[in-house]
Amino acid sequence: MSLLVVGSVAFDAIETPFGKTDKIIGGAGTYIGLSASYFTKNVNLVSVVGGDFPNETLEMLNTKGINTDGIEIRQDEKTFFWSGKYHDNMNQRDTITTELNVLETFDPQVPDNYQGCDVLMLGNLSPGVQKSVIDRLNDRPKLIVMDTMNFWMDIMMDDLKTTIAMVDVLSINDEEARQLSGEYSLVSAAKKIMTMGPKYVIIKKGEHGALLFHEDKIFSAPGLPLEEVFDPTGAGDTFAGGFVGYLSAQSEINFDNMKKAVIYGSALASFCVEKFGIERIADLSDNDVASRVQQFTNLIEVDL
Amino acid sequence: MSLLVVGSVAFDAIETPFGKTDKIIGGAGTYIGLSASYFTKNVNLVSVVGGDFPNETLEMLNTKGINTDGIEIRQDEKTFFWSGKYHDNMNQRDTITTELNVLETFDPQVPDNYQGCDVLMLGNLSPGVQKSVIDRLNDRPKLIVMDTMNFWMDIMMDDLKTTIAMVDVLSINDEEARQLSGEYSLVSAAKKIMTMGPKYVIIKKGEHGALLFHEDKIFSAPGLPLEEVFDPTGAGDTFAGGFVGYLSAQSEINFDNMKKAVIYGSALASFCVEKFGIERIADLSDNDVASRVQQFTNLIEVDL
Repeated sequence: MSLLVVGSVAFDAIETPFGKTDKIIGGAGTYIGLSASYFTKNVNLVSVVGGDFPNETLEMLNTKGINTDGIEIRQDEKTFFWSGKYHDNMNQRDTITTELNVLETFDPQVPDNYQGCDVLMLGNLSPGVQKSVIDRLNDRPKLIVMDTMNFWMDIMMDDLKTTIAMVDVLSINDEEARQLSGEYSLVSAAKKIMTMGPKYVIIKKGEHGALLFHEDKIFSAPGLPLEEVFDPTGAGDTFAGGFVGYLSAQSEINFDNMKKAVIYGSALASFCVEKFGIERIADLSDNDVASRVQQFTNLIEVDL
Repeated sequence: MSLLVVGSVAFDAIETPFGKTDKIIGGAGTYIGLSASYFTKNVNLVSVVGGDFPNETLEMLNTKGINTDGIEIRQDEKTFFWSGKYHDNMNQRDTITTELNVLETFDPQVPDNYQGCDVLMLGNLSPGVQKSVIDRLNDRPKLIVMDTMNFWMDIMMDDLKTTIAMVDVLSINDEEARQLSGEYSLVSAAKKIMTMGPKYVIIKKGEHGALLFHEDKIFSAPGLPLEEVFDPTGAGDTFAGGFVGYLSAQSEINFDNMKKAVIYGSALASFCVEKFGIERIADLSDNDVASRVQQFTNLIEVDL
C-alpha cells in the first residue's frame, strides 16, 4: 500500500543534559518518513522548506525510498526552526525559539503522482492544514492517521475537532488525551475520543509505552526500559512513522496488524532517543530493527 | 510451599474523591494475606494488634486459610491507625494521622508452627523489625521477598540497606527505586539495587504496571487500564500478596514463574482499587481471578 505523509521538514537546535546541537535536521515529516522507510519504499512526503534547506538531505530521503516531489522549496524564505532544552529527567522541555518561517503560510499541495494513496499520515500541523490535505485527495485513503499536540487544543479546539472527526486513528500522548477529552482516566478519555470520529485511539505514555484502543478492545505495548535517553526529540513522530510504515506494508488493515504496528513504532522510537535528532533512525539496518522488535517480544513474553 | 507473611494489621480511614470511610480494616499484612489466600491455604501471618481489634476480622482471615497464631494481641493497647486523603488524580495522597500504637514496640515473634516456611514476605515495616524476623527463623526460607517505602529511606537508610542485603526480591515503586539507587533510569536503578543483595527487583509503576528485573532479563507487566480507581490504598501490598501467593503454590521458583506471579499480583491489585480498603479482595471468587488474568493476557497478546 502506498503511504502519503504530511509533516514539517525543519531545523532543530536541541539541548539535553548530554549535550547541545547546532541547527540539525528535524521536523515531524522527516522523522515519520525515515521511520516508515524501514517498512515500505512507497512513501510520498508533502512539506515545505526554505532556500536554506540542504539539498543533500532531500537526496538522502530519496535514497531511503521517500519521494520528495511534494516538498515545496521556497527559495527566498527560511525553513521552520525550533529550539528547545530538556530538563534533567527528559520528561519535560522548554521551547526556546519557534520561527515558523515557511510554515506560517504553508498550503500543502498534493502532486498528481501522490493521488490514490492507501494510507495518509497527518503529522502534527495546524488542524486546518491537516484538513486541507484530506480535502485535496481525490479518493479517501483506506486509513487516515493523525497526530496533533496540546498547542492546537489551547488555541483552536473547534478546528481541531473538525479534523479529528475525519480520521480513523488519532495518536496523542496521555496529557493531550486528557485535555482533549476532559477525562482523567485514559480508558474514559479514549472512549470519549472514539465518539469524536476516530475508530482507533493510540495514547502514547512515553517511557511507559502506548495503549491502542478500538471498540471495547485495548492493547498495551510496553516501553523499552532504557538506561539512557539521550534526546527524546522526534520520538512520537518516529513512533507514528513506524506505525503507518508497518501497516502500509501489510495486505490488510485490522486490529491484529495495528497491534504489531504499535510494537514496530515503539521499536523505531526506542532507537530515535539514542542519539540527537534523526542521527540514529537515518542509519538503521533491517537487522537492527528485527533484533529490537525481538527485545520487545522478550519483554512481554509470559506463558499464562 | 508454605508462606510466612509479616506485616501490619491495622485500622485505616480513607478519603478519596469518591467518598470517605470511618475506621476500616487495613494494614499491609492484611492485604498481603488476603491476596495470597487465593493461591495457597498455607499462609502464616505475624503481626500485632490492640484490644480494640475485632475478633471477627481474625476469624474471617482464618476462614480464608490464614493462620493468625502469630498475631500478638495486646489487650491494653490500641491498634495501628492511619488516615489519609487522596488528591483528585489518585496518584498522590496526604497522610492526615499516623498513630503507631502497638507498632511502636512491635517485636515480632515467630511461633514454632511457623518455622520451616519456604517463602517469607516482609511487608512494609521498619527495616530492623523486618530483619529480626529473618534472624528468628531457624532455616533460611527458599525465597525472601521484601517491600519497603521512602519513609525508611529518609530516616534509616543504613538499616534499610542491611535488611535489603539479606533478601532475594525487593518490591518497591519507581520513585523509591530512584531514591534508593540515586539513579533516574529505572534500568540503572534496578541494576544498582541488584548489587545491594536482591537477585530480583520489582519496580511498581502504579497505573503503568510493573517491571521485573533479574540478571540481564527484564519483564514488563502492563497495568490494567481502568475507567475508575476508587481507592488505591493497599494496592501495592495486594500486588505483593498475589506475587508471593502464586509463587508459593508452584513447585519451583524461577524467572518464568516470577513473571506469571507478577501478572497474578497485578490482577489482584486491579481488584483492590475497585472498592474501599479490603472490601473487594476479601470477596473474590476463583473465577473472578481467572477472568481478570485473562484480561491481562488479552491486553498484551500480540503475534509478532
